[in-house]
Amino acid sequence: MKLDEVTISRAILKTHAEIFSGYLDLDIAIVGGGPSGLVCAALAAGDGRKVAIIEKKLSVGGGMWGGGMTFPRIVVQEEARRLLDQFGIRYTEYGSGYFVASSIEAVAKLTAAACDAGAEFFNLTSVEDVVVKGDGRVSGLVITSSPVEMTGLHVDPLTLAAKITVDATGHDAIVAHCVRNKGGDLFIHGEGFMWAERAETNIISHTREIFPGLIACGMAANAVAGEARMGPVFGGMLLSGEHAAVLARESLGRL
Amino acid sequence: MKLDEVTISRAILKTHAEIFSGYLDLDIAIVGGGPSGLVCAALAAGDGRKVAIIEKKLSVGGGMWGGGMTFPRIVVQEEARRLLDQFGIRYTEYGSGYFVASSIEAVAKLTAAACDAGAEFFNLTSVEDVVVKGDGRVSGLVITSSPVEMTGLHVDPLTLAAKITVDATGHDAIVAHCVRNKGGDLFIHGEGFMWAERAETNIISHTREIFPGLIACGMAANAVAGEARMGPVFGGMLLSGEHAAVLARESLGRL
Amino acid sequence: MKLDEVTISRAILKTHAEIFSGYLDLDIAIVGGGPSGLVCAALAAGDGRKVAIIEKKLSVGGGMWGGGMTFPRIVVQEEARRLLDQFGIRYTEYGSGYFVASSIEAVAKLTAAACDAGAEFFNLTSVEDVVVKGDGRVSGLVITSSPVEMTGLHVDPLTLAAKITVDATGHDAIVAHCVRNKGGDLFIHGEGFMWAERAETNIISHTREIFPGLIACGMAANAVAGEARMGPVFGGMLLSGEHAAVLARESLGRL
Amino acid sequence: MKLDEVTISRAILKTHAEIFSGYLDLDIAIVGGGPSGLVCAALAAGDGRKVAIIEKKLSVGGGMWGGGMTFPRIVVQEEARRLLDQFGIRYTEYGSGYFVASSIEAVAKLTAAACDAGAEFFNLTSVEDVVVKGDGRVSGLVITSSPVEMTGLHVDPLTLAAKITVDATGHDAIVAHCVRNKGGDLFIHGEGFMWAERAETNIISHTREIFPGLIACGMAANAVAGEARMGPVFGGMLLSGEHAAVLARESLGRL
Amino acid sequence: MKLDEVTISRAILKTHAEIFSGYLDLDIAIVGGGPSGLVCAALAAGDGRKVAIIEKKLSVGGGMWGGGMTFPRIVVQEEARRLLDQFGIRYTEYGSGYFVASSIEAVAKLTAAACDAGAEFFNLTSVEDVVVKGDGRVSGLVITSSPVEMTGLHVDPLTLAAKITVDATGHDAIVAHCVRNKGGDLFIHGEGFMWAERAETNIISHTREIFPGLIACGMAANAVAGEARMGPVFGGMLLSGEHAAVLARESLGRL
Amino acid sequence: MKLDEVTISRAILKTHAEIFSGYLDLDIAIVGGGPSGLVCAALAAGDGRKVAIIEKKLSVGGGMWGGGMTFPRIVVQEEARRLLDQFGIRYTEYGSGYFVASSIEAVAKLTAAACDAGAEFFNLTSVEDVVVKGDGRVSGLVITSSPVEMTGLHVDPLTLAAKITVDATGHDAIVAHCVRNKGGDLFIHGEGFMWAERAETNIISHTREIFPGLIACGMAANAVAGEARMGPVFGGMLLSGEHAAVLARESLGRL
Amino acid sequence: MKLDEVTISRAILKTHAEIFSGYLDLDIAIVGGGPSGLVCAALAAGDGRKVAIIEKKLSVGGGMWGGGMTFPRIVVQEEARRLLDQFGIRYTEYGSGYFVASSIEAVAKLTAAACDAGAEFFNLTSVEDVVVKGDGRVSGLVITSSPVEMTGLHVDPLTLAAKITVDATGHDAIVAHCVRNKGGDLFIHGEGFMWAERAETNIISHTREIFPGLIACGMAANAVAGEARMGPVFGGMLLSGEHAAVLARESLGRL
Amino acid sequence: MKLDEVTISRAILKTHAEIFSGYLDLDIAIVGGGPSGLVCAALAAGDGRKVAIIEKKLSVGGGMWGGGMTFPRIVVQEEARRLLDQFGIRYTEYGSGYFVASSIEAVAKLTAAACDAGAEFFNLTSVEDVVVKGDGRVSGLVITSSPVEMTGLHVDPLTLAAKITVDATGHDAIVAHCVRNKGGDLFIHGEGFMWAERAETNIISHTREIFPGLIACGMAANAVAGEARMGPVFGGMLLSGEHAAVLARESLGRL
Repeated sequence: MKLDEVTISRAILKTHAEIFSGYLDLDIAIVGGGPSGLVCAALAAGDGRKVAIIEKKLSVGGGMWGGGMTFPRIVVQEEARRLLDQFGIRYTEYGSGYFVASSIEAVAKLTAAACDAGAEFFNLTSVEDVVVKGDGRVSGLVITSSPVEMTGLHVDPLTLAAKITVDATGHDAIVAHCVRNKGGDLFIHGEGFMWAERAETNIISHTREIFPGLIACGMAANAVAGEARMGPVFGGMLLSGEHAAVLARESLGRL
Repeated sequence: MKLDEVTISRAILKTHAEIFSGYLDLDIAIVGGGPSGLVCAALAAGDGRKVAIIEKKLSVGGGMWGGGMTFPRIVVQEEARRLLDQFGIRYTEYGSGYFVASSIEAVAKLTAAACDAGAEFFNLTSVEDVVVKGDGRVSGLVITSSPVEMTGLHVDPLTLAAKITVDATGHDAIVAHCVRNKGGDLFIHGEGFMWAERAETNIISHTREIFPGLIACGMAANAVAGEARMGPVFGGMLLSGEHAAVLARESLGRL
Repeated sequence: MKLDEVTISRAILKTHAEIFSGYLDLDIAIVGGGPSGLVCAALAAGDGRKVAIIEKKLSVGGGMWGGGMTFPRIVVQEEARRLLDQFGIRYTEYGSGYFVASSIEAVAKLTAAACDAGAEFFNLTSVEDVVVKGDGRVSGLVITSSPVEMTGLHVDPLTLAAKITVDATGHDAIVAHCVRNKGGDLFIHGEGFMWAERAETNIISHTREIFPGLIACGMAANAVAGEARMGPVFGGMLLSGEHAAVLARESLGRL
Repeated sequence: MKLDEVTISRAILKTHAEIFSGYLDLDIAIVGGGPSGLVCAALAAGDGRKVAIIEKKLSVGGGMWGGGMTFPRIVVQEEARRLLDQFGIRYTEYGSGYFVASSIEAVAKLTAAACDAGAEFFNLTSVEDVVVKGDGRVSGLVITSSPVEMTGLHVDPLTLAAKITVDATGHDAIVAHCVRNKGGDLFIHGEGFMWAERAETNIISHTREIFPGLIACGMAANAVAGEARMGPVFGGMLLSGEHAAVLARESLGRL
Repeated sequence: MKLDEVTISRAILKTHAEIFSGYLDLDIAIVGGGPSGLVCAALAAGDGRKVAIIEKKLSVGGGMWGGGMTFPRIVVQEEARRLLDQFGIRYTEYGSGYFVASSIEAVAKLTAAACDAGAEFFNLTSVEDVVVKGDGRVSGLVITSSPVEMTGLHVDPLTLAAKITVDATGHDAIVAHCVRNKGGDLFIHGEGFMWAERAETNIISHTREIFPGLIACGMAANAVAGEARMGPVFGGMLLSGEHAAVLARESLGRL
Repeated sequence: MKLDEVTISRAILKTHAEIFSGYLDLDIAIVGGGPSGLVCAALAAGDGRKVAIIEKKLSVGGGMWGGGMTFPRIVVQEEARRLLDQFGIRYTEYGSGYFVASSIEAVAKLTAAACDAGAEFFNLTSVEDVVVKGDGRVSGLVITSSPVEMTGLHVDPLTLAAKITVDATGHDAIVAHCVRNKGGDLFIHGEGFMWAERAETNIISHTREIFPGLIACGMAANAVAGEARMGPVFGGMLLSGEHAAVLARESLGRL
Repeated sequence: MKLDEVTISRAILKTHAEIFSGYLDLDIAIVGGGPSGLVCAALAAGDGRKVAIIEKKLSVGGGMWGGGMTFPRIVVQEEARRLLDQFGIRYTEYGSGYFVASSIEAVAKLTAAACDAGAEFFNLTSVEDVVVKGDGRVSGLVITSSPVEMTGLHVDPLTLAAKITVDATGHDAIVAHCVRNKGGDLFIHGEGFMWAERAETNIISHTREIFPGLIACGMAANAVAGEARMGPVFGGMLLSGEHAAVLARESLGRL
Repeated sequence: MKLDEVTISRAILKTHAEIFSGYLDLDIAIVGGGPSGLVCAALAAGDGRKVAIIEKKLSVGGGMWGGGMTFPRIVVQEEARRLLDQFGIRYTEYGSGYFVASSIEAVAKLTAAACDAGAEFFNLTSVEDVVVKGDGRVSGLVITSSPVEMTGLHVDPLTLAAKITVDATGHDAIVAHCVRNKGGDLFIHGEGFMWAERAETNIISHTREIFPGLIACGMAANAVAGEARMGPVFGGMLLSGEHAAVLARESLGRL
């Protein structure tokens, strides 16, 4: 077959423009492609719902790639082991009830699952503000190109609409802070001391709609709630993503 | 279950140390976790071979995440479509014979395949030199911690042994340059002008053992050979990775 | 009228994608939006020719904005005064035969003229390589996003085709260097000492096709030819842009 | 004609020094050369009024060059379409009531109009403070060289006088902050959530004299008023610039 | 003897992993390897106690290497001279009661003494948070790799447990700030004016358990207490380290 | 007296523009305001000659401010002591024939002497190229604003004419390198090993016209000649400046 | 004479160490070598008083070198003209009562005068804190090496004693902030709007002992007092330096 | 005892100035305080010889602190085990003939031994050039302050004399490059591929006088000789330092 560079370039540009344009009004916008966001996307997408992950970096996976202190292994406790099984992530047991997996495999399998479920990904895309209109709901996101933001170039952002937004940006809780900074009625307590047991137990109850239209998920949930800091274990993160997906689908059903 | 932070930390540290130590003498060391390296790993691992990808960044995937000019789509031509199928990467056709896939899905599925085949990953690990002893073969790699290298801290490297090394580091051809810089008999011609058709056609023949013990793969193969530069299309990359896997397995058989 | 943010975002995205895609095969690609490139575009566009300026910065205008040593005034000699008149740039006379204009007005009026003539602009776009196939002509450009390049992110480029390319990148002569670096038969002599009179006189003869498909224009022409360096006067730049437009149109006619 | 480098240098230096010195006491100082400042300048200059734009960057145009997220297109709604017509900026209609123009053409045409109206431009010039004397009015600006400021060199500023100052510095509202930081009776509420419709409607009423001698214009007006954030649409910006010009001329008439 | 690079690498990796893993639950964690931390370690270790210094830099010694203003000499007053003798640090007398030693010798000898006493060292390791559970005690540290922290890479930390923690991080009082930032009941007053005599006299009484499980030592003790700043003399630092060792051993005995 | 900020600003601007414009055609341009350049200026100016120092930094004085290794003292040997006396620089004798002065006083007194002699100073001004026309002489300098150069902003330079140029830029020999880089017939040998005695003795003979119109002075003279490196002593520097002044005046007389 | 590099190095080192050591207990420490500090030093030194300027940069002169906006001219009003005469600084009159001088000459002559009066200079020396003992007076300064501070190296400071300290550090008022930051009873109001006339008139009354042992001088005096900001005129600065010298000598007399 | 800050400061300053001045003419200058330099110093000092280590960093120890890839352990083979014993460095055996020690203990004990032997240390001191006079020997070093070098401040160096210089600067071989760069008859071959066995065996023969007055030691010896690169094992380094000490003492005896 004869290869033509311009056709290839057009294929990339036009396919992406079509998809990006189609996804400018989302059912569920998940901000942050770390472990909880990926699980949320994998479980919330499907059945025709328009779900996308907005990720500021080039790669998704968040803090999971480096395992603990750059040793590329993650630990998951018994309670969340079924999610490893569900996503096909292999593991070995260490001691009793601690399951160790490759951090790289975990990212790859969770991402693949989100793709297979039908979620879209917009990487190198930063959220710098939220849309809140007369109904008082977070109903959209102000997005910008990450490389532009990194270079400090003066370029205006675009806007996308989302019926439900999930803040899965880790302990920075970026979307929650956008709401707070603009005077929204939302208090962000910040994480407490590290206490893995407590944090892992409570994260599910903190995974909830923290502002109309906005669900906190993963470490962002604990940071907003003022919960204890999570230890180097990923079970609660995965379970929080699962719970956020359930909540998001329910909220969509009520709209 | 009661969670203990120290046990979790030990699980990470000890599991990783065990694996890392076990993989310090490899059958096949693949340097660079971009598309050709991932395909090579997915197809070379298995049957008890110790295969590992050495990746200097935190995430694998190389230049694939950003698609073309940050539009996260990749194009693959007819000849390599079967590899998309083999790795379960979904695509749509654009024009005739151009298949467009999500760049993020492509990275995730190739990485997952490499994991499933039994390849190990050592990320945040940079190769700064090679071991060549009296037999004149590349028989090992001098590796260092990428964050240490980025900060310029003065810390000594470690060494791993590899029966076969694959240079899948893109047009930088890092391993080949290590050989060249130390006076090895290897000329690196550098890429020519961009000419996608020609580059895609010839890459397979350039994917070969360029120095005893060292196979060039992907863009590194074309860079060493002085071949035309590859266009924004990934078919040749994937096929080169496949070919490198075949060559590496054959070489191993002959040792 | 009711304003909808998503419609606005789509209007921007889809209009631009349509235009960008349409201009991926150009009649004339002018690399660099400084004074000579702008004049060239203003005079080469029109009559259905697809002409675009590829500019790596956010703004066009090149080194003209800052006048001389940040004093925002430019000087044009008698020979080029007619071009100031043609583009509606106002001036005053200083001494005899030296015409002083506002550097900001000059950029604005030249850019407006290029727009009115039908030239397109792709800013924040860097040229990192050229396409040369079997016919030995520069027949396309390898382009990348400037913010991505500035941040050093690892993202692959796209390609556009151009029947004629004009190198109007100033004394860096970027396109000419791309050709040279890949082994093209083109010697770049570099500018000589400053000698305004000589440089201004000879620039027209140096504005020529320096490699099949590639015309040098403005300071790039003198840099390639090894001509004397140009002084703080803009007449020769404008006339060179005019001459490059004539040559480009002629070349197109011959293809 | 014989060209002399020294005469050229003197022409630049002396012409600029004459103009700069003449404009050190302005009728209207417009700080910021983005879209609202340019419209304001184009409509306020003329009839012998000394009007100048003080721009900290090398180029004017502000955030307009990059369109939305680096796609170089701007959208203007029906209400402001007449200003596109007035300044000769070409557009196409997208959907109903959304007019899309080239961002580069828009900058060029607005700048050309300001020049033609007789406004002067001092680029690479930063405002770091204001003059307020016994009458309690902003009656001048403390200006410095932007490159000096960027390098952190310790060099003292100069001062210019202005009967009326327009703060067109975008959401940074730099001049308003100078007033505020020195204890002036001026509260800056900061932008609210993005809500394009509301922000576009209310900007005209916020474009007003916010402190004796100081008019806020464009995004600075909304930022001071605590209005909703503006979306990726430029109509309100242009109309605000127009309104600021009317107010500035009226204020001048009353002095 | 035949040398094998892989065996050497394994010796380093496995020996360290064994020791590091064994020391993830410490009797006494001393954060900061400056003079007071080194003295504390030298006097607290031994008798089977697991004592380790956590040092964020590559080298220990803290601010002592550079003496005063880069002149590599330290001064110790009469009261602490016995510690110089105890650690074998040679000195000369200047004036009456001022003893001057080489700053480099002082670091070397104190470090050697800590090693000989059986303390372990984890350098390039930063403390970013503390573990506090239901008993309200500082019972562990959240640690991360310093090079990773310096590069801003997104990698999760590990956790170690410690029965007693000593904050010997100088006037930054890093551990105390971790406690404070997370809402612990601990007020950090900050150093006062410099007044060497007063600061040297009072440091011993400020060297105390400032929060359950956390002892402040060296400059951190004075910083927490709001004591006067210490002058360029090291006696109080060494005596504070000695006192912290006594307190830490006593606390251990009570647990 | 009533103070008016605008009048003050105008006084600065207009006085400087007048002087700068007047000095755009110099009799003697001394590039570099270090010790040899200052002595040269002090002795070459006067009698109506237009002499100026072009200094790229904000302050003149070059490497003299910091004395040796930041100890602000300079040493001058017996042979040059008379110049200390001539410029009123106080000194004490150390050993026999070594005279120690304050480096700060030395800079101040040499600069004051150059001012009193009638030399002008253009600081924050960098030389980036030379003018050489048909007569083959260095007959002018291409100058740019140092802060602009430091920030990498794209702004064009200006040109000044000089009958004689003195390169007093230290071992960088900047003007000599401009000549060399553009192909001028001038070989720059670079300094040899340090050997103070030899370098101090020979500097006078190396202080000479190294290219038509260009005299090398101070360390630049030795660097061009390939002489030994000068030690931490300033006598030769001062004597070289004196000799360059004599040569420059003689050359002027011959023109 | 035979030159010996080691003797030269020893001459520098030993002479400086002797002087520096001798000046570690000062009568008057002037922090900041800008115009007001230089005048203060020139008028306070002499008669056996130990007076030194502590300057953080390599060169003294502060913001005076660059004149106004890099045009190297300063303006002094009628009231301070006698100080120009006293220090031998030449000037021309612009308009009525405005005297324009070379900024470079001004720095040189003021510095030379301070040297001649017997003041010492310690450049590249930063003040990071103050000594305040039981008498509640500023009785010393904590000093560090500026290059060390710039590089962030961890090196301890030294201390010098001063009977009187003059804060001549410009609007940063560094010494005053040291006092304030450590809880001293001193409120720093910060400069107000620019209003040259008012600021120039009132600076003398603000030049006073603002805390026991500490006199504010120059812009620091106005910054502490909350006075209007000074315009681009130097008269008040020089007069403030003169007044600070009088006050410092008087205070010394009372001790 | 009453503590006085000024006396303390003087004690530091005067003691150091005395020692530094005394050591400006050395018997043996060892450049680089890494493991081989420390061993050399420990064994060459004593018996009245003036021996000093010149170290550019704040701390000595070189690349040893970080062990291998930040795991703070070093390995020494059987041949060099006696040196561990000699310096009191504790170790454990791994496999057969590989002895593992704490890298921190190793630095501390080697440094302490060098101190005890009477070597002096000048840290934060960079060597930028060498002195070579008529006898063609390296007879001195041009030294500068490292923080000054890091900040790029323009400050002149000092000079020290040394009868013998040892280049122990690692594979940078800094002193050897100084000699080479100035045209000295010395070829630096650069390290070859890594081959630990060969490199460890041959290092002793490469530890030799490579230029009159200059002995290469440690990795610098192998780098100059073009020997294979050393692996992550320290035996050869320690033995090379020992051998350099023998050679240096012998050379001194012959002078």
